Amino acid sequence: MHIANIDEVPTSPVTIPGVAGVEMAVMCGREHGAPNFALRQFKVSPGGHSPRHSHDYEHEVFVVDGDGRVLLAGAEREIRKGDVVYVPADEEHQFTAGSRGLRFLCLVPVSRNCGDPTPGS
Amino acid sequence: MHIANIDEVPTSPVTIPGVAGVEMAVMCGREHGAPNFALRQFKVSPGGHSPRHSHDYEHEVFVVDGDGRVLLAGAEREIRKGDVVYVPADEEHQFTAGSRGLRFLCLVPVSRNCGDPTPGS
Repeated sequence: MHIANIDEVPTSPVTIPGVAGVEMAVMCGREHGAPNFALRQFKVSPGGHSPRHSHDYEHEVFVVDGDGRVLLAGAEREIRKGDVVYVPADEEHQFTAGSRGLRFLCLVPVSRNCGDPTPGS
Repeated sequence: MHIANIDEVPTSPVTIPGVAGVEMAVMCGREHGAPNFALRQFKVSPGGHSPRHSHDYEHEVFVVDGDGRVLLAGAEREIRKGDVVYVPADEEHQFTAGSRGLRFLCLVPVSRNCGDPTPGS
């Protein structure tokens, strides 16, 4: 039985280019046997951000707490606790934390590009 | 751009056998273009429960708030805000709300059984 709380799992710094002040943990993914999609937790420090990028797989995001903005479809929009955000494949996006920081879940398919493992899944 | 808040989307009663006091809404699924998995919100009234059942696809669950229990792998365990629960395919499970009710996200693959649409995706 795999049950883990987002407040009790250690997170690791995300070090890919274009990232500032982001930590993450795979809450449920390949290592837990998930066959189709992975649930990751991200914590963004106040003013920090994910990279401004796109890739060939989608995100489904849930904002757990904090405040911030998402860049999506060429526009920036405020996001808040309880928001679900769909980021289609190949669409440029970036998440930026506001003054309170931002915590969100970000889900990805475990496979991309006809079977390659998705990074961070 | 699809962004929706779990507090602002109408939910519908779940009427399948074995369910009591459950409402749900598909926050991100087939209708939004999601190609691989669907994010659904469930609200369970105090003492209500999902069916005790199993099926040929997995769940990944995130507890948003409230209190309750999950039956999984033959044992019942308390769950609380922030918990991530992995329910493997073909494993019997049931979610029951405690005195405060239970709200959780439950994700499923959009396809099962070699391409059939997953119910509620």
